[in-house]
Amino acid sequence: MGMMQECIEACSAVSMTATMCADADAGEDMARCAAMCANMADVATTMMRMMMRPQGYDMGVMQGMMTACMTMGEACAAECRMHAEMAEHCRICAMACEAMVETCRRMMDSMQMA
Amino acid sequence: MGMMQECIEACSAVSMTATMCADADAGEDMARCAAMCANMADVATTMMRMMMRPQGYDMGVMQGMMTACMTMGEACAAECRMHAEMAEHCRICAMACEAMVETCRRMMDSMQMA
Amino acid sequence: MGMMQECIEACSAVSMTATMCADADAGEDMARCAAMCANMADVATTMMRMMMRPQGYDMGVMQGMMTACMTMGEACAAECRMHAEMAEHCRICAMACEAMVETCRRMMDSMQMA
Amino acid sequence: MGMMQECIEACSAVSMTATMCADADAGEDMARCAAMCANMADVATTMMRMMMRPQGYDMGVMQGMMTACMTMGEACAAECRMHAEMAEHCRICAMACEAMVETCRRMMDSMQMA
Repeated sequence: MGMMQECIEACSAVSMTATMCADADAGEDMARCAAMCANMADVATTMMRMMMRPQGYDMGVMQGMMTACMTMGEACAAECRMHAEMAEHCRICAMACEAMVETCRRMMDSMQMA
Repeated sequence: MGMMQECIEACSAVSMTATMCADADAGEDMARCAAMCANMADVATTMMRMMMRPQGYDMGVMQGMMTACMTMGEACAAECRMHAEMAEHCRICAMACEAMVETCRRMMDSMQMA
Repeated sequence: MGMMQECIEACSAVSMTATMCADADAGEDMARCAAMCANMADVATTMMRMMMRPQGYDMGVMQGMMTACMTMGEACAAECRMHAEMAEHCRICAMACEAMVETCRRMMDSMQMA
Repeated sequence: MGMMQECIEACSAVSMTATMCADADAGEDMARCAAMCANMADVATTMMRMMMRPQGYDMGVMQGMMTACMTMGEACAAECRMHAEMAEHCRICAMACEAMVETCRRMMDSMQMA
């Protein structure tokens, strides 16, 4: 339960950093980063909401979405990392994505053991 | 491109039927169906938006999310099917989910061939 | 009821055109248009979902959100109109926003008469 | 800027408490509360995202959405207050809504002075 709380907070953080990164990107001609961050924000928001609906838990559904969220997080972090030196919002978003992927991975492990 | 358009429309339909089903469920003491439909609406909306952001396409990310969307669609359809005889909104939502899963499957196939 | 259906469809259309416009804008150095369209897509999606939850209807809440949606629609249309000659996605988004504002206005009128 | 940060956090808190309240409500035959909380979660998420997109700021749009968010917050708090004695999630959601309304009000005041 503490692990899910941590995971919810990591998704919430990414939903914010990615929304801000997408907004800033558009003014800096970084279209791919903007689009990936917009996707990341939507995926993180959806993942977060799913964890906050215990009445609808389904192991297969959660693992599928968690996997998608981790794949998205890795791709978004990789994209943001490329501009991290010159854009602070990209550095912050990359860090939040990496932290989220790590938290999701730990939660996946604990789900599989359960 | 026509296939993606079809997939976007199927996700859009599900985002509507699932939102309406969740709303109706709550008044009929179907908590699990309500929560699954709320999840389904969020997943379908996110999937739809990702397809409408070509600047951010990434094959791995799209396949991961498409897989999650299909798993969610199958689970939501199975849940809604259980009440389809007595609740029209569940019957409609189940049908929309099944149609979406089928469209996603065809799109996944064409992505893997590409 | 037919009027609300029309309004739901107008919001759905805007949620799509605005998402696509925001995506395209980012690659064309139109940061303000991208951000306004991202806002518009979120507002239209929320407005649409609220109309699909009859169990939660509240006249004051609906009018407040409808007013916000119209203000957003007018601002987004005005921004997109500025680039409509050179960018097709802006022309399409402006038209969808204007149609949505008009539909919302008719629905507001009918709500006040009811 | 500190005020907007506070407002973003208040909206984020409501987007969580309202999602959880809606989920729990459905199992307790509180359909109106569930629907209002689902609306509240969507409105708060949209409001929060709009504040995180400085490139798209427009005073009229922000005030319109802020007003809608406050009206929604007051209605949701009033609904949740009715069940606050018997349902902890309603008590928590009502408190988060009230805090958000208060923060939005302060931000509206500072926007009008600016």
